This record gives sequence, structure tokens and C-alpha cells, in this order.
Amino acid sequence: MLFHVRMDVRLPADLDPGERDALLAREKAYSQELQRDGRWPHIWRIAGEYANFSVFDVESGDELHQLISGLPLFPYMDIHVTPLATHPSDIRA
Amino acid sequence: MLFHVRMDVRLPADLDPGERDALLAREKAYSQELQRDGRWPHIWRIAGEYANFSVFDVESGDELHQLISGLPLFPYMDIHVTPLATHPSDIRA
Amino acid sequence: MLFHVRMDVRLPADLDPGERDALLAREKAYSQELQRDGRWPHIWRIAGEYANFSVFDVESGDELHQLISGLPLFPYMDIHVTPLATHPSDIRA
Amino acid sequence: MLFHVRMDVRLPADLDPGERDALLAREKAYSQELQRDGRWPHIWRIAGEYANFSVFDVESGDELHQLISGLPLFPYMDIHVTPLATHPSDIRA
Amino acid sequence: MLFHVRMDVRLPADLDPGERDALLAREKAYSQELQRDGRWPHIWRIAGEYANFSVFDVESGDELHQLISGLPLFPYMDIHVTPLATHPSDIRA
Amino acid sequence: MLFHVRMDVRLPADLDPGERDALLAREKAYSQELQRDGRWPHIWRIAGEYANFSVFDVESGDELHQLISGLPLFPYMDIHVTPLATHPSDIRA
Amino acid sequence: MLFHVRMDVRLPADLDPGERDALLAREKAYSQELQRDGRWPHIWRIAGEYANFSVFDVESGDELHQLISGLPLFPYMDIHVTPLATHPSDIRA
Amino acid sequence: MLFHVRMDVRLPADLDPGERDALLAREKAYSQELQRDGRWPHIWRIAGEYANFSVFDVESGDELHQLISGLPLFPYMDIHVTPLATHPSDIRA
Amino acid sequence: MLFHVRMDVRLPADLDPGERDALLAREKAYSQELQRDGRWPHIWRIAGEYANFSVFDVESGDELHQLISGLPLFPYMDIHVTPLATHPSDIRA
Amino acid sequence: MLFHVRMDVRLPADLDPGERDALLAREKAYSQELQRDGRWPHIWRIAGEYANFSVFDVESGDELHQLISGLPLFPYMDIHVTPLATHPSDIRA
Repeated sequence: MLFHVRMDVRLPADLDPGERDALLAREKAYSQELQRDGRWPHIWRIAGEYANFSVFDVESGDELHQLISGLPLFPYMDIHVTPLATHPSDIRA
Repeated sequence: MLFHVRMDVRLPADLDPGERDALLAREKAYSQELQRDGRWPHIWRIAGEYANFSVFDVESGDELHQLISGLPLFPYMDIHVTPLATHPSDIRA
Repeated sequence: MLFHVRMDVRLPADLDPGERDALLAREKAYSQELQRDGRWPHIWRIAGEYANFSVFDVESGDELHQLISGLPLFPYMDIHVTPLATHPSDIRA
Repeated sequence: MLFHVRMDVRLPADLDPGERDALLAREKAYSQELQRDGRWPHIWRIAGEYANFSVFDVESGDELHQLISGLPLFPYMDIHVTPLATHPSDIRA
Repeated sequence: MLFHVRMDVRLPADLDPGERDALLAREKAYSQELQRDGRWPHIWRIAGEYANFSVFDVESGDELHQLISGLPLFPYMDIHVTPLATHPSDIRA
Repeated sequence: MLFHVRMDVRLPADLDPGERDALLAREKAYSQELQRDGRWPHIWRIAGEYANFSVFDVESGDELHQLISGLPLFPYMDIHVTPLATHPSDIRA
Repeated sequence: MLFHVRMDVRLPADLDPGERDALLAREKAYSQELQRDGRWPHIWRIAGEYANFSVFDVESGDELHQLISGLPLFPYMDIHVTPLATHPSDIRA
Repeated sequence: MLFHVRMDVRLPADLDPGERDALLAREKAYSQELQRDGRWPHIWRIAGEYANFSVFDVESGDELHQLISGLPLFPYMDIHVTPLATHPSDIRA
Repeated sequence: MLFHVRMDVRLPADLDPGERDALLAREKAYSQELQRDGRWPHIWRIAGEYANFSVFDVESGDELHQLISGLPLFPYMDIHVTPLATHPSDIRA
Repeated sequence: MLFHVRMDVRLPADLDPGERDALLAREKAYSQELQRDGRWPHIWRIAGEYANFSVFDVESGDELHQLISGLPLFPYMDIHVTPLATHPSDIRA
């Protein structure tokens, strides 16, 4: 099923630049692996903010939590999940 | 460009059932026409609420406002728009 | 999977008493049928408020939305859904 | 009587990993002891967040505060308690 | 045990004056009976607002909800309950 | 006159334990002196939170501010004051 | 003592114009009488809003509530009171 | 001086269409007159909402309030004003 | 023209006491100079909080910003400004 | 198209003064370059706050995000973007 997720990143201003770069590289790789296997079908930057709206496609709340809590940036993010359903007007439903 | 839109429907409890059905039928037709021509690429029901998350793909704020303010349900909805950008981790970007 | 749901009831003050009683009787029957078939395992009154916290156990967001939007009181409620996962400290997990 | 509790964990990013592991081990042991003796009948992870919804079953507000303020993570959590009552539609009431 | 309760009254502006007076008289009698039997030990007006802070002393969440939902003004109030515990500095504890 | 006060304590996690104990001892002594002389007639712990609801009985806003700003924990608290009046249903009024 | 008060007026759109004019005339007379006797020393319009910031100078919370609840517009206003104290930098203190 | 103003329009759903059209025509004429004389230099629609961001250029808070409270839609709008100053980076300052 | 200002002070808990005293002395001198020249006609402590409500009387938003941003405590304050206008019931208007 | 942007600056109190001056100089140069090429047509200080309201004129959400995230102060700002459209009453439209 689908879940809508908003993630707001709060990196400490004094994070070591090298550590920061490594963290962001791991985050990108982690995200792209989930995008490729179909479990993270959408990710958009919120224009002007260090934040994103994403859609996840998983089997359960447990799988969703496992994926999100495994994000390298998880300790630095505020996250809010909204469960989705098929909209009756959706032409692809 | 892409815009993320949340729409919350507040229909008056005393709306005439026939009027309500006609209104919802027009809303559905209007939405599906925009979905078919590619300007409303995503619409999801927020599970448990009379609300949706949508993504619009339009040329400008003017076009976006024209589409949304033309919705048959527009007078009965609270709407909030968030502009989107390409996420640097998006594998389709 | 499990979903946590908060429901706040806002009945119009001028609702006909007979209509109100019939509505509440249908709500109770609907809720108890879902409790009996295991899809609504918990329902608690929030003390002092016309509101409840509930837990639903369903297969998908679609099933959840179908159950909630079918509630006789649905047009009169504010509803917020939070998806749940197994807690690592849960002794029953 | 029953209380609904939401706990949001805010661990400092620079907490020593060994100290953190010890803290979480003590938290788990503390929670499981209360689950086993029946005073913490439900605990669910909020999917995607470092937070939980719990239900406590205690004799009084004093007992509730003693249990919650004794949590090893108490200094690192935002906590909100809502008192519960039996719902008139609850089939187990 | 003790519960802190905030009640905000929202009477409809078009309520019949006679009906309003009768309602308020019943509310006062109901409240004073509970004050006399010790279950509503404190009630204060919030200065400048049609609202009160109260403290209830009851056996359980069920008893609390029964008392509050029986208030003649209950359909016209927003109510929020906070459970209390003994403060370690309280000289009467 | 009476004032309702909510105090939320935010002690820094890295406060020296000895300093913390001394601070809390001074806070307790200060509070109990005001309770004994009748100016702090009520103090309740908010169950599950490091916070209290209190009622102060003082001559003026100046006296109230002098008492609250003199609290040893004042630099570590969020405080909100609400002025009270006699409730027309209060049987002790 | 001094109290800071914010008042937001919410007149029903369908109020009879004659009734509205009479109501506002009574409000003005009531306010000016209190201004003249010194108990309502300041009243400012909040620019662009149907609202005001006021300062009252009264003996007690009871007197404050009596004055405010006697306002002809009281049933149509949202009101919030903040108790004031002398500021240590005030040159007139 | 300059003021930033947000206006949210809340027209009643049952407003007579003729009355509504006349009201909107008067609002447009009123706004355009102020735009032409330089006191309302900017007005933008908030995309997707029945709302606008505006900038007013007036001599005083009194003049601002007179202009805004004279808007034909004033009784149907939520309005919030923010005073502006020259930004030190503004190349036109 | 007049502006209503709320200032909330957030001094860091670890500020050097000597530095703190010097800062507060400079703040007081700065405030009193503006009070004496008539541009800061009112300042009240919000009872129980490290905050004040003030009224400024200045020529423009630019002058207001220059005065406020020059406050020695400016880097440590949350500030919110509301523009004022003459109230039609004000007997001094 | 046009976007309305609010930026709130939160510089750490312990930022090195030299570093701070250099940062602000780079911010100013960056902003003025965008003002000169027409992509940042308006910038106003919010009177009394370390914040601004701006209007950007860009081709897309991607261009907007690139400009804003490139601001030297970006890591120290809370930013909120609102998409704009032509207002039907705008005399310049």
C-alpha cells in the first residue's frame, strides 16, 4: 500500500563537512536503491526548503518503519507519514 | 512545473442529496479530464479523511489557479499548494 | 496492518432527536460488527470529550478508508489516522 | 483505569553510542517488566517516527506519573497523556 | 484521583432566552450538587472568557466521563482533560 | 486575587547532577514557604510530564511576577499565567 | 492592577442592520464610560482587523470579568486576557 | 510606509449570486481605484486559494485601517497585516 | 504612528553573569532613552514570563526597525509587531 | 512565474563576528545580483524581526530551489514559499 511521507532535514550547523558529505552520499545511495526496487516510487524536493515529499509503496507499517528508520539521515529528520488510499476519481485505479 | 496540493472537502451537512450527487459527478469528470491531458498526474485519497493529496503539472501559477478555482467543489474546499522541485536523489531526474 | 485513529464527533445542535438516536444506533451496530470480525480491535472514549481513540486492523489503506468512510457518523466527524508498526520492546511481537 | 500516552524520543545527536545502547537496553527491560505485570498493556511504534502510542492500566495519576517518570528515557522524551473511559459501543465492555 | 478540566462554552447566538436561562439553571444545579458531594472540588471562571478551569476528584475515567457528559451544557462546550498527580513539593501531600 | 499558572520545566540534559539536586532542593524550599504563607494554595503535577498546574493567591500582577521570577527554576521554565475570577456556580463563593 | 486584553469581534453576517447599529452604539457608550472612570485606560484598533488591544486597570479578576462580560458585544467576541506587571525599565514606575 | 497584507475571503455558500456579483464588482472597483492612486501598489492571488497577498503604501495605521475596513468584502475576510521596512540589501533603497 | 510589540527574551543559560549584567544594563539605558524622547510610550512586563508588551510611537516602519534592531537584547529576543490605529470609541481620539 | 517567500534568519549567538560579517557580505552580494538580473524583484524587511518577505520571478520550481538553496544564509534560515498568480483586480495584469 501507499504512504505519503514528509521529511524535513535538520543537519547540525557544526557537522564536519567530510562527515556531512559521506552521510549525504549514503543517503542518496540508500534512497536510489529503494527507488529502483519500486518501494520509493516518488520523491520531490519542496522548493526552497531542505525537505521532501515522498510516496512509499510497501506491504505494511512494519516494512515502512524499517525502511524509514534505516535512512542514514533518520536521526536528523522530522518525519510525518500519512496513509493513502485509491481516489475514486483516479483514472488509473 | 509540479505543484503538490492538499484539498480538504467541507460539504454542508444539509446539501440536497441530488445537488450533491450532481456536484460530485461534475467534479469527477473535471478531474478525470485533467488527469487524461496530463496536467493532474497524481491524486490519492488521504485514508480516513474526505481529503486528497494531488500533484499538478502546469506551466505557471496562473494556469494552476485557473484549474483549481474551476473545480466544481472549489467553494467547499480548503486548499494548500506547495511548489515542488526535482530532488537530487531522484533516479528519474 | 494496524492504524491508530482519532475520531471527534461534531453533531449539529439542531439535529432532530429521533434522527440522532437512529444515527447513533446505526453507528453502534456498524462499529460492533467490525469489532466482532476483528477489524476494529480497540475503541476507547476520550474521557470528557465526544471523541474516541481506536485501532483498526486491515489489509490496506483502501480497506481502511472503505470502513471509515462507511461510518454512519462519518459526515459529522473529524478523523485523523496514524499508521502503526510493531514496537521493538513489545513482548507480544 | 486506562491512559493513552504518546511518547516522542529526542536523543541528543552527540550521545555516546555505548551510553545510548545501555540506555535503550534499560528502557526495554523497564518497559517489558511493566508489560508483563499488566500495567502497560499496549505499545505501538508510530510508523516512520521515533515515537510510540501506549496504553497504561494503573490505579491512579500518581501511579501513572511514577511509572512514566521512572522511564530511563524520560529526560529525553516529550510525553502527552490522555485519560480514557469505556466506549459505549465497545463489545468487551 | 484528580483531573484538571478546561471547559469553553459556545452557546449559539440565536438560542431562545428562556431556553438559555433554563439550561444555565440546570447547569448550575448539576455543578453545585457535584461540588457538594466532593467530586468537583474546584471551579474558577477564566477572567474575561466564557470558560472555566475545574478540578474533579473521581474514582476513574469512566466516572469522570459520566459526570462531564451529563452536564446540561455538554453539547455546547469544548472540553479538555489533563490527569493530575501529587506534586513532590506539595506540603499537603 | 487568584492566578492559574502552568509551568513546564526544561532542565538541560548535561546539567551537573550535584548542581541539579541543589537547584531542586532550593525550588522545593521556595515553593513550600509560599504554600505555607498562603500565596501558593495549589500545586499539582501534570501526570506523565515534567510540569505543574498551580494556583497563586496574591495582591497584584507585580507580586505575582516577583514570586514567579524568583523561582530557582525560573530560567529553565516555560510559564503561562491565566487570571481567574469567581465562578457564579461556585458554592464557596 | 493592569490587564492586557485582545478582543476579536465576530458579528454574524446576517445581523439586522438596525440591531447592529444599536449594539455598536451601546458598546461605545459602555466603553467610554469605563474609559472616563479610569478603568479602561487604553484602547487601540488593530490595523486592518475588527479587533482591539486594550489595557484595563481594575482591583481584581472578579472586577475585570464583570466589566468584560458586561460588554454588549461580549457574546460576539473572542477575548484573551494577559496579566501585566511593572517593567523594571519603565521610567514611570 | 509599506504594509504587507494577507486577505482570505470566506463568502457564505448560500450568498445570492446576484448579490455576490455586485459585491465582487464593487470590490474590484474599490481596489483598482487604490491601485491607481498608488496606495495599493501590489496585489497577487495566492495560487489555488481564495486569498491574496497585497502591499499597501500609506501614511499611517489610521489610513491603512480606513482603506481596509472600507473594502466591500471586509465583513467576509480574515486579514493579517505585517509592517514592512527597507531591507538593507534592497538595490532600490 | 503606533505599533504594538511583544518581546520574549531567550537568554542562553550559560551566559557569563558579568556579560549578562552588562547586557541588561545597556538594554535598560537604551529603553529609557527611547521612553524619555517619547518613542517608546508604554512598556509592561507580562506577569510570570520573561517578556514584555510595548507600544512604540514612530514615523515609519524603517524607524521602528532601526529602534528595535538596535536593542542590545535583539539577538536574544523573539519579537512580533502589530500596527495600531485609532479606535473609534477612544475618548482621547 | 512569481513566488512569495518568507525567510527567517536564525544565526547562532556564538558565531564568530568576522565569519558573520563575511557571511552577511556574501549574502548581500548574492541577493543584489539576483535583484539586478530581475529574478528577485522585491525584498522587504519585516519590521522588528530578523526576517524578510521577498518575491522571486523564475521559470520553474527547480530554478527557485537552486537560487534559494544557494543563499549563503540558507543553512541558517527557515523558509516558506507560496506560489502566486495574477489577481483578477490587478490593474497591471
